[in-house]
Amino acid sequence: MTAPLSNDLLERMDAYWRAANYLSVGQIYLRDNPLLKQKLTLAHVKPRLLGHWGTTPGLNFLYVHLNRLIQAHDLNMIYVTGPGHGGPSLVANTYLEGTYSEIYPEVGQDEAGLMKLFTQFSYPGGVPSHVAAEVPGSINEGGELGYCLMHAYGAVFDNPDLIAACVVGDGEAETGALATSWHSNKFLNPARDGAVLPILHLNGYKIANPTVLARISHEELEALFRGYGYGPLFVEGSDPRQMHQLMAAALDEAHGRIVEIQRQARNAGFSGRPAWPMIVFRSPKGWTGPREVDGKQTEGSWRSHQVPLAKIAEVPEHLGLLEDWLKSYRPWELFDESGRLRADLRSLAPQGERRMGANPHANGGVLLRDLNLPDFRHYAVEVNNPGSQTAESTRVAGLYLRDVIKLNVEERNFRIFGPDETESNRLSPVFEVTSRAFTGEILETDTQLSPNGRVMEVLSEHLCQGWLEGYLLTGRHGFFSCYEAFIHIVDSMFNQHAKWLKVCQDIPWRRPIASLTYLLTSHVWRQDHNGFSHQDPGFIDHVANKKADIIRVYLPPDANSLLSVVDHCLRSRDYINVIVAGKQPQLQWMDMGSAVAHCRTGLGIWEWASNDDGDPDAVVACAGDVPTMESLAAVMVLREAFPALRLRVVNVVDIMALQAPSQHPHGVADDLFDRMFTTDRPVIFAYHGYPALIHRLTYRRANHANFHVHGYQEEGTTTTPFDMTVLNGLDRFHLARAVVDRVPSLAASREEFARFVEDKLAEHDAYIRENGEDLPEIRNWRWLIREVDA
Amino acid sequence: MTAPLSNDLLERMDAYWRAANYLSVGQIYLRDNPLLKQKLTLAHVKPRLLGHWGTTPGLNFLYVHLNRLIQAHDLNMIYVTGPGHGGPSLVANTYLEGTYSEIYPEVGQDEAGLMKLFTQFSYPGGVPSHVAAEVPGSINEGGELGYCLMHAYGAVFDNPDLIAACVVGDGEAETGALATSWHSNKFLNPARDGAVLPILHLNGYKIANPTVLARISHEELEALFRGYGYGPLFVEGSDPRQMHQLMAAALDEAHGRIVEIQRQARNAGFSGRPAWPMIVFRSPKGWTGPREVDGKQTEGSWRSHQVPLAKIAEVPEHLGLLEDWLKSYRPWELFDESGRLRADLRSLAPQGERRMGANPHANGGVLLRDLNLPDFRHYAVEVNNPGSQTAESTRVAGLYLRDVIKLNVEERNFRIFGPDETESNRLSPVFEVTSRAFTGEILETDTQLSPNGRVMEVLSEHLCQGWLEGYLLTGRHGFFSCYEAFIHIVDSMFNQHAKWLKVCQDIPWRRPIASLTYLLTSHVWRQDHNGFSHQDPGFIDHVANKKADIIRVYLPPDANSLLSVVDHCLRSRDYINVIVAGKQPQLQWMDMGSAVAHCRTGLGIWEWASNDDGDPDAVVACAGDVPTMESLAAVMVLREAFPALRLRVVNVVDIMALQAPSQHPHGVADDLFDRMFTTDRPVIFAYHGYPALIHRLTYRRANHANFHVHGYQEEGTTTTPFDMTVLNGLDRFHLARAVVDRVPSLAASREEFARFVEDKLAEHDAYIRENGEDLPEIRNWRWLIREVDA
Repeated sequence: MTAPLSNDLLERMDAYWRAANYLSVGQIYLRDNPLLKQKLTLAHVKPRLLGHWGTTPGLNFLYVHLNRLIQAHDLNMIYVTGPGHGGPSLVANTYLEGTYSEIYPEVGQDEAGLMKLFTQFSYPGGVPSHVAAEVPGSINEGGELGYCLMHAYGAVFDNPDLIAACVVGDGEAETGALATSWHSNKFLNPARDGAVLPILHLNGYKIANPTVLARISHEELEALFRGYGYGPLFVEGSDPRQMHQLMAAALDEAHGRIVEIQRQARNAGFSGRPAWPMIVFRSPKGWTGPREVDGKQTEGSWRSHQVPLAKIAEVPEHLGLLEDWLKSYRPWELFDESGRLRADLRSLAPQGERRMGANPHANGGVLLRDLNLPDFRHYAVEVNNPGSQTAESTRVAGLYLRDVIKLNVEERNFRIFGPDETESNRLSPVFEVTSRAFTGEILETDTQLSPNGRVMEVLSEHLCQGWLEGYLLTGRHGFFSCYEAFIHIVDSMFNQHAKWLKVCQDIPWRRPIASLTYLLTSHVWRQDHNGFSHQDPGFIDHVANKKADIIRVYLPPDANSLLSVVDHCLRSRDYINVIVAGKQPQLQWMDMGSAVAHCRTGLGIWEWASNDDGDPDAVVACAGDVPTMESLAAVMVLREAFPALRLRVVNVVDIMALQAPSQHPHGVADDLFDRMFTTDRPVIFAYHGYPALIHRLTYRRANHANFHVHGYQEEGTTTTPFDMTVLNGLDRFHLARAVVDRVPSLAASREEFARFVEDKLAEHDAYIRENGEDLPEIRNWRWLIREVDA
Repeated sequence: MTAPLSNDLLERMDAYWRAANYLSVGQIYLRDNPLLKQKLTLAHVKPRLLGHWGTTPGLNFLYVHLNRLIQAHDLNMIYVTGPGHGGPSLVANTYLEGTYSEIYPEVGQDEAGLMKLFTQFSYPGGVPSHVAAEVPGSINEGGELGYCLMHAYGAVFDNPDLIAACVVGDGEAETGALATSWHSNKFLNPARDGAVLPILHLNGYKIANPTVLARISHEELEALFRGYGYGPLFVEGSDPRQMHQLMAAALDEAHGRIVEIQRQARNAGFSGRPAWPMIVFRSPKGWTGPREVDGKQTEGSWRSHQVPLAKIAEVPEHLGLLEDWLKSYRPWELFDESGRLRADLRSLAPQGERRMGANPHANGGVLLRDLNLPDFRHYAVEVNNPGSQTAESTRVAGLYLRDVIKLNVEERNFRIFGPDETESNRLSPVFEVTSRAFTGEILETDTQLSPNGRVMEVLSEHLCQGWLEGYLLTGRHGFFSCYEAFIHIVDSMFNQHAKWLKVCQDIPWRRPIASLTYLLTSHVWRQDHNGFSHQDPGFIDHVANKKADIIRVYLPPDANSLLSVVDHCLRSRDYINVIVAGKQPQLQWMDMGSAVAHCRTGLGIWEWASNDDGDPDAVVACAGDVPTMESLAAVMVLREAFPALRLRVVNVVDIMALQAPSQHPHGVADDLFDRMFTTDRPVIFAYHGYPALIHRLTYRRANHANFHVHGYQEEGTTTTPFDMTVLNGLDRFHLARAVVDRVPSLAASREEFARFVEDKLAEHDAYIRENGEDLPEIRNWRWLIREVDA
């Protein structure tokens, strides 16, 4: 066995590890007597024992070893902690290295600080059991499992000097998100990106079960990681002295390989994907904890998952066992009288920003630089008259994004993410200046594929989301385009990122990061051949449940408003922006000046389509591109039928503007809202998604009871664009009829108009059955506009 | 090279393949001249070309080869098709084998039938491009990718004779769900379960990109699948004759291995997880399609993904190319004059239910048998007076589930699924009669772990959901228990299952299947140590967007109502049931008789807690266990403060009962609703989740404007149970104050009461900061009840 550690170093590293373990156990159990200066009594033990021990000693072990590696090579390294309930470890280690006390001065490097450290853990309003935003050095919340490895990869993209040591729990390794994360190495370029050092922590057990990867053969395990493209190194055992030497050797070897891979790629250029090192670290769950409790194996078993000695008050022997356990770390050898870690151990931690708890990449806001943004007005579609021409809105946004990439090539701080849909979503102009990133085999016949590409495409919404989060959390910028229906795949990841951002609002040392911006396109209304499975506009509802301070939702109806919104989103910080916009050719309504003004308020009256003279019989409101078109067509139908009818058209870009200002910072003032929507006239609202959301957002508005919302009713199939609106009652005829039904002065015309609508829809229905497409008068949008405009 | 196929058989199989390819191309392109009896003209070609060719020839190739295997060994086999847009293939093959025409007689086995077959594809209201519920033989919708392999495993659990041949697209193989699905073999027992034969279809490209797995080395690919625990067989090439022999040999080998694995396990008992065979099938994307179009490689490239010749009308040469392509299959050799497949080819398909399109397992409702259910009343918690005792509701449900397992052991048609949480969610009584299923290594120290277990635990909500869907779709029953927050991980899978069920309502030959029932526990209000990341009650909102016919949501406040609800759900068909119930000790309110009556209506007045004499000053309503407790405590606080105040308590179990009957079949009639909630009194509604949902559900009710809903406001941290309610304004004091603020007769007391509430909350706040737990008077629920009861 190689023995890279001298005896002295090994002893000190072991002592450091014991110190971290001691502090971890202390956090779970103690509320007094933090240095065990007195005999342990029940009064020193927390009355309610909350927390988790199982994963912690392994995390502690890795921390001291990574510290050695950092010091030996002056590494720029962050520690991404996947396993759930690893909180005590990271708190302990950032405390030992000093970072924690710098950020939280009330937790000082003395006995009082230790007391505070212990008591705050899993205490009301205190420190969570998971590695959370409150913990310095973290970019990954350990509560929902499976995202650490994608965060680690996201962190090192475009950070050539950075190494992300990423501990993957063997429990979370069973999740889908983690299982596909290993393939991230096909998108990592050793010449321009940093390195991820994955460490699979095989401690064998989840809450109450063994883990899958701990119960397959060594041969299969090794084959699996070779198959994933890694060169695995195995560190397995339970004897601390042996394990110290093994781990040190493995880390030296891994580091050497990383250096060599990077050297080759950076000197000679990228020449094929290397087999990056990774470590399989098999150690007992609850290592160094009680071997047996009440006659049952505890160390090395799932019984170590939470609190191994849970009945301190009830079972008399448990107090003694706890004291033995704490004393097994020999705290008197680790801390001086004042409670401070001894100097010879302190020197094992790196200094300043080399400390993993203080690495600025783990607090990306401090590194964040504004993007160089082109003037989005330069990409404006010329619109002399509303509806005088068509454009594919997302393609126009693609031109702008192309230049965002171009202007930030030097800064290397902007990437676009999406599941194989950049082209399909018509953002293809970006390929004029960059390619898709790929470090798998590239054939001569491939196009727009390069190890240097800045578009990250993989058929996994999880990977797109996770990489982007990692990229943003380390102080860069990004943009995620996705089919609308399938963004639900990352609902839960969105939740966790939104929660992270919300928590960070109360953590002053966490600096603002760039917002996470989604462009949802290929949306519910245009799935002509994909059909029902691709129709779901519900992500907006999901988003609306999160804190108003964090979330923004935009439905730009045309290209110029989309440009304005995208520009705004790329400048924003600490938000999650959701933009929904179609990719199909569509009529353009606003010139750039109007679009900018419209987006600034978030909603507005379209005077050119209104004839209400300040006193409408009804308001026709719309949000979303297809609803906007159908609303305007409905207005046209109504004007033809009822020339005297006074209609007002209100378009909404920023749907959070509908909410009361007390509920969302974008909410427009009540008087403005009332001026637009009136306080007593019927409002027929055509909305892109599920109608309930508009009711929810307008709930506190004066005219709320008069809002009649048409939207997606979960009806769909493989059919034409217009037929989709008909199936859901969002088409021009249903909308027009809804107006007629609610304007008192038209009461006498209702029956006749209902028949007219039925005839029109029957005519259309017969036509599509015969011809497979929409009636020409419906397909020909010019016809719509000529009339509205007149 | 082995050559298992005789020349004659090879020729006929190739002809059958050509027939399927011909029908696939025909579906994409033709609206007339289906047998190419005339020279092809533009008039024969659909005006709008929708559909996807790329994956289809490979799927067709596999189908004829699996047909041979079925015939050779009289196999019971289903075909699970993962790749997106595989619709044309499965429609073509089920048509060729006769199944399609039996189910859809209008698509007969003649020229007219062919015409209909072609024109209906990707036509408004016609046949989708994905393998969907409309396609016979399918249990997997091909629209959202990544779920085929978990569906296949779910299908074969407890189906020892069944083989699920599962084609995994190399695009979808990049998804997280699929990447972890390969590990399903650690949960498959060859003695009692059937077999999955995964076939990775490496056709190399997604929409616009190569796939990851197509661009790693052979060595890595082989290692990956060996690491996943399979013995991969490779079928690679493009020459059809060679490929026929290779595929036939690979299938013979795979089948032989499956037979041998099963023989050993069934004769000698399970003795270790075998290396199941799988096939890597590398063939060109768009195989046999146009090699080049407009000078660009098309066959064997992503350009074959959709319609390879897309501009038939615009580019004159394309029509000729299309004709050449169609003729390359020599349809005149395949179909007779009448348009029927020639008899020597027809004989290649199996007969009757051996046809993969007619296998009853793919229409599980026809195999479904009712569960043997114990009388849930036997598990009743005795409740003499409301609140006279506590119980852990989910543990009581666990007793019932234990006996469900016991009573159906022989039938082998019930399993419980959950991500390592059965014990944590206190369903542990089930382990008295069964274990967790596991076929990885089992150690002596393991407990409740066996290859014969009926509890499926893996730390992947995706796998739990996918296995369960596969199990239900093949005619069995199941139950999924999950932490509430993390069920969002499968939001998108839920969507697709709900859409599948909705579509099946209009497919008479699809027989009803058992409902998918979720028990969401470890919920938002009791995450004392898990904190903010574990707090999200939004799944209910997500569910509420789907069709009312499909979804049911229950919030039983105690054990007896939970029993009644679980029993009801296990008897139901074609629904998705969501049950939210806590696992912590909680007061019990209803005896079994009351609980059954309460659950039958879905909501009701709790007379024992009300004192309104038919004319309340306010209604205190509640849904969910924690809100129910806080509401009753609020009533107690109010009675003490205002003895003359007349309060009514309404508890809601089935929140869909709140909706108007026109919106949901469970919606109670307006007059009943009005009798309970009044039409003009304030209703203070304490709700488990995000408040907006209650407004949404009650939107059409007369008293809606007087509903004031308290619920989760996305505020949380590591804290005590009661403090969580305080943070979100759902605690007894906030609720009581909300009542006082809205009852006109109490106007004079508002200020004083507000001060009282503030004092109470401040007192509590000080106490938890000092003691780390809730005030004794709040922890001691007895105190609450004594007062309410008095």
